[in-house]
Amino acid sequence: PDTIPRTRGLALPQGISKPAFLSAISSLRAILGGENVEINDGELKNGWYMEHPNTHDMMPILSSEEFVASAVVYPGSVSEVQTITQWANQHLIPISPISLGRNLGYGGSAPRVRGSVTIDLGRRMNKILDINAEDFTCLVEPGVTFYALYEEIQRRGLGDKLWIDCPDLGGGSVVGNTLDRGVGYTPYGDHWAMHAGLEVVLPQGEVVRTGMGALPGNNTWQSFPYGFGPVSDGIFSQSNFGIVTKMGMTLMPNPGGYESFMYTFQNESDLAPLIEIIRPLRISNILENVAQLRHGLQTISVKGLPRTTYYSGSGPIPESIIHEELKKTPTGDCTWVYYGMTYGPPHIRKYKTDIIDAEFHKIPGCRKIDPSTLPTDEYFWSRDKIAAGEPDLEELLWTNWVPNGCHIAFSPVSPIRGTDASKLYELAKNRHAEAGIDLMPAFCVGLREMHLIVEIVFDGKDEGMKKRAEKCLRDMIDDAAALGYGEYRTHLALMDQVASTYSWNDNALMKLNEKLKDALDPNGILAPGRCGIWPKRYRGRGWEM
Amino acid sequence: PDTIPRTRGLALPQGISKPAFLSAISSLRAILGGENVEINDGELKNGWYMEHPNTHDMMPILSSEEFVASAVVYPGSVSEVQTITQWANQHLIPISPISLGRNLGYGGSAPRVRGSVTIDLGRRMNKILDINAEDFTCLVEPGVTFYALYEEIQRRGLGDKLWIDCPDLGGGSVVGNTLDRGVGYTPYGDHWAMHAGLEVVLPQGEVVRTGMGALPGNNTWQSFPYGFGPVSDGIFSQSNFGIVTKMGMTLMPNPGGYESFMYTFQNESDLAPLIEIIRPLRISNILENVAQLRHGLQTISVKGLPRTTYYSGSGPIPESIIHEELKKTPTGDCTWVYYGMTYGPPHIRKYKTDIIDAEFHKIPGCRKIDPSTLPTDEYFWSRDKIAAGEPDLEELLWTNWVPNGCHIAFSPVSPIRGTDASKLYELAKNRHAEAGIDLMPAFCVGLREMHLIVEIVFDGKDEGMKKRAEKCLRDMIDDAAALGYGEYRTHLALMDQVASTYSWNDNALMKLNEKLKDALDPNGILAPGRCGIWPKRYRGRGWEM
Ligand SMILES: Cc1cc2nc3c(=O)[nH]c(=O)nc-3n(C[C@H](O)[C@H](O)[C@H](O)COP(=O)(O)OP(=O)(O)OC[C@H]3O[C@@H](n4cnc5c(N)ncnc54)[C@H](O)[C@@H]3O)c2cc1C
Ligand SMILES: Cc1cc2nc3c(=O)[nH]c(=O)nc-3n(C[C@H](O)[C@H](O)[C@H](O)COP(=O)(O)OP(=O)(O)OC[C@H]3O[C@@H](n4cnc5c(N)ncnc54)[C@H](O)[C@@H]3O)c2cc1C
Repeated sequence: PDTIPRTRGLALPQGISKPAFLSAISSLRAILGGENVEINDGELKNGWYMEHPNTHDMMPILSSEEFVASAVVYPGSVSEVQTITQWANQHLIPISPISLGRNLGYGGSAPRVRGSVTIDLGRRMNKILDINAEDFTCLVEPGVTFYALYEEIQRRGLGDKLWIDCPDLGGGSVVGNTLDRGVGYTPYGDHWAMHAGLEVVLPQGEVVRTGMGALPGNNTWQSFPYGFGPVSDGIFSQSNFGIVTKMGMTLMPNPGGYESFMYTFQNESDLAPLIEIIRPLRISNILENVAQLRHGLQTISVKGLPRTTYYSGSGPIPESIIHEELKKTPTGDCTWVYYGMTYGPPHIRKYKTDIIDAEFHKIPGCRKIDPSTLPTDEYFWSRDKIAAGEPDLEELLWTNWVPNGCHIAFSPVSPIRGTDASKLYELAKNRHAEAGIDLMPAFCVGLREMHLIVEIVFDGKDEGMKKRAEKCLRDMIDDAAALGYGEYRTHLALMDQVASTYSWNDNALMKLNEKLKDALDPNGILAPGRCGIWPKRYRGRGWEM
Repeated sequence: PDTIPRTRGLALPQGISKPAFLSAISSLRAILGGENVEINDGELKNGWYMEHPNTHDMMPILSSEEFVASAVVYPGSVSEVQTITQWANQHLIPISPISLGRNLGYGGSAPRVRGSVTIDLGRRMNKILDINAEDFTCLVEPGVTFYALYEEIQRRGLGDKLWIDCPDLGGGSVVGNTLDRGVGYTPYGDHWAMHAGLEVVLPQGEVVRTGMGALPGNNTWQSFPYGFGPVSDGIFSQSNFGIVTKMGMTLMPNPGGYESFMYTFQNESDLAPLIEIIRPLRISNILENVAQLRHGLQTISVKGLPRTTYYSGSGPIPESIIHEELKKTPTGDCTWVYYGMTYGPPHIRKYKTDIIDAEFHKIPGCRKIDPSTLPTDEYFWSRDKIAAGEPDLEELLWTNWVPNGCHIAFSPVSPIRGTDASKLYELAKNRHAEAGIDLMPAFCVGLREMHLIVEIVFDGKDEGMKKRAEKCLRDMIDDAAALGYGEYRTHLALMDQVASTYSWNDNALMKLNEKLKDALDPNGILAPGRCGIWPKRYRGRGWEM
């Protein structure tokens, strides 16, 4: 695996001398055991998805040494997590929790502040604490991956009864993905909405259980998400207000059958009318899952071959080549591909697929692809697995598009409307053309909104391309904000910029976030800067980027 | 309408002299206009549901003069709400916001702290700001009732397209009901889950918009509930952290048909096996709405006649009489009645009703009541309307059960399990028998949990009965907590007790709530004590009850 050259030495937390840091680390070692505290002073190895580093962002868009931890600690229990927060408060050392650290495209396992101590919760706290086949719920620790949960359900012989929902890659953690408000592709795709109950260690070390978890002896922590009084779960997602040590998740009952479908649309300009057709179908649940409408180029890139297989010129790959290549695939020539799934017994599915078919065919040139004509290694079958709650990894293949394939995401939210889809698509297209980067957009249609997900694939060793990719992203964020679109989630490097677009009434929401941050974390030790929220000790001192 | 005798005089805020109070009120009058600030020094009239008072709890379980406001103010704009909070901070006068103040059973329009100034938002801030028939959303001010929203949708000719969801009584406000996490009876019954976007005036006067509302020029405030960074909406429900001035709500698309159904079950002991049958049907959405499983006594009481029509002895009405009376009704003899609705076109409904019918008939003696045999004034038709999103008022009728009919609710949350249903039912039955009060339980089945709703109907002028009702409630809360059940919502008088049952880890959740409260409301002016959350100025000074 590739390594990152170290030019800046050990990433010490700002304002802490090396001896003070080493002595603080020794005292932590004394409590947690030497094997559970690692100073990050060796090589910075990049690895790959399955062997990802927990010390830095393996897909750096800025300087490779920017988002780097000083040390990594492995707590084995809630009380050890409490101990770590107390230690951090005592030494004023920033700490940054990850569950698995596979948040690729958004910063991976890296801390926002160079020199933070990463708390790798997943390594030792990875138990499935409960799977309840009556209530269709589970309770997991941070280290439980979608794969692990899926496999445990099968192992217990409950696979016929309980489904999980997973994102496109199954190696992430249920907890980390949900806290970053990730999405999956069954009807349970809105992970945040589907969670029920958190256990959180607050920045000063207190442990809280939310919802019914606060009632001793309860048996509804995972079945009723609210409890009594304020619902505080939300403030622990996309924030730096606490460290989640347990999370409840609801599980989907086996719907009694399912069926994937795939439609292609010929013209770029089909986008707007198609989105108009999708909206009412999606809101009324005729389209039942967070389906993907992808650009044809993704059908090519997800085959896993480098772009040079198809084109070696500079600038974005010409449309004519995309169409030529698509003609050779089972998908056939097209501009857009819709992947969906319908659920339930056959006659219920038929009711829905008949409506969908009639509606989609209102777009001239629309083609339904018969799955039985597709080879078993076709990407369609990966989507089929995922939409049925079975984890997969095939989505990784498009990172091969350029050498040293890294990626970073632009993910604005918009209504499910033709005009909005067109505006966002045009905006992305123009900025990609300027930057000379291939555009691979996918519209992920939620219930009343859609996320446009544009993954910029870049060569992690090509400094010029990194600069262009960063500029392209920052321009798209600004362009989108000017039109009223905001990102639902973002990479560490872009958090300040994205947060600053949510500026209504003189940044009132950020001021509220800062008030909460200062109340909960007066010493500012927990993940400073995450999602643009800086604690008092850092605020106004030039940390924003 | 009945009046409450005044023995304690004007309810001054604690620690404020009468002259200081009057002078503060004059200064508020000078800003808001004299007609928008009323001192509450006249008669305390009780009125009825449609002409409810905004000055006190018209259904007092404690002393009638406990939950009484010193004055009522009527802001006409967000900036006037800001002004009021600033005024309150200046004079250290507690303020207590209501939207409509029809929170009957939970304290009505009353403040928790006697002498608070009630902010009646609904009177002047009652506009429907948006109804979006493409996204199926709306944006409303606090004074918009379920009736008003429903009627405006019809007026715009959108009734065929957009459904609302309403609680059993349609005269409450969308905002107030949702903030108290109320429930309704279509598939959109979980109002909190269905809202999207808040505008909130914080206790110190700043205005915040949550979610996408924080992005200037956005068009997704009502279609994507999360935005970027922490989701703060939850902390403004069942709390005293802010005053909500606008709220977004999603609307249900017309499902293309619907059909109410009603089943009766003969024996008390059918409860447990029936609940076991309901659980998997509900979680898999074969049972699609928050249905109600009601005790037969409610079928009698909701006819609106006083209990003396049927029984004039003391103690709970004997079971034999309930059965005798039921025999005379179209419902027929039974112990439990299930009201549900199925949605969609006929063949889709049939798929579901066939399953439901087969499953329910596993209970010996189960009877499906044919709606065509029911007279038009039968309560069934009220449930039919409500489950189809049409507001109604018929539910009020059971308050006639005793003279001066008041009521107060016991609403614990439990899993959808037979054993839990039985335990809660037994507990309520025993405590009602002890108190000599008729038990009218309804199980409202959510998705993975159910709320048992027991409304104690009491005579507001019978001090002995009030004492018995209060004791019965407090005993049930303690009994339930000992078994692991907690209330989802409660009356002002019981908030401290209920909050204290959510005590895990040395009241860690309440300590978190207090930390947030102190950060947002350092002077403790906003609704002190609501949901058991006391600000620093009040804490530990004997305010709890
Ligand atoms: C090819 C590809 C496809 C992808 N497709 C999807 C997709 O379909 N949907 C999707 O949602 N994502 C997708 N991703 C992004 C990402 O891989 C997943 O979201 C992944 O699940 C996140 O990583 P993780 O679960 O290991 O979370 P982590 O990296 O462990 O956590 C993410 C962040 O959440 C916070 N956090 C984590 N745990 C805690 C905790 N216990 N307490 C407090 N804060 C915590 C931290 O800030 C952390 O950085 C994709 C990525 C790639 C490379
Ligand atoms: C017969 C009967 C049947 C009922 N059935 C149901 C039912 O099926 N489902 C159900 O949910 N309820 C039910 N209720 C209870 C109650 O009537 C409704 O919930 C009603 O909608 C609440 O009153 P409201 O909307 O006027 O809210 P309000 O009384 O205006 O608000 C409730 C509380 O929320 C807070 N609040 C309100 N507005 C704001 C604001 N803008 N900012 C900050 N805080 C605010 C205040 O603390 C206030 O006291 C029933 C009551 C009766 C009498």
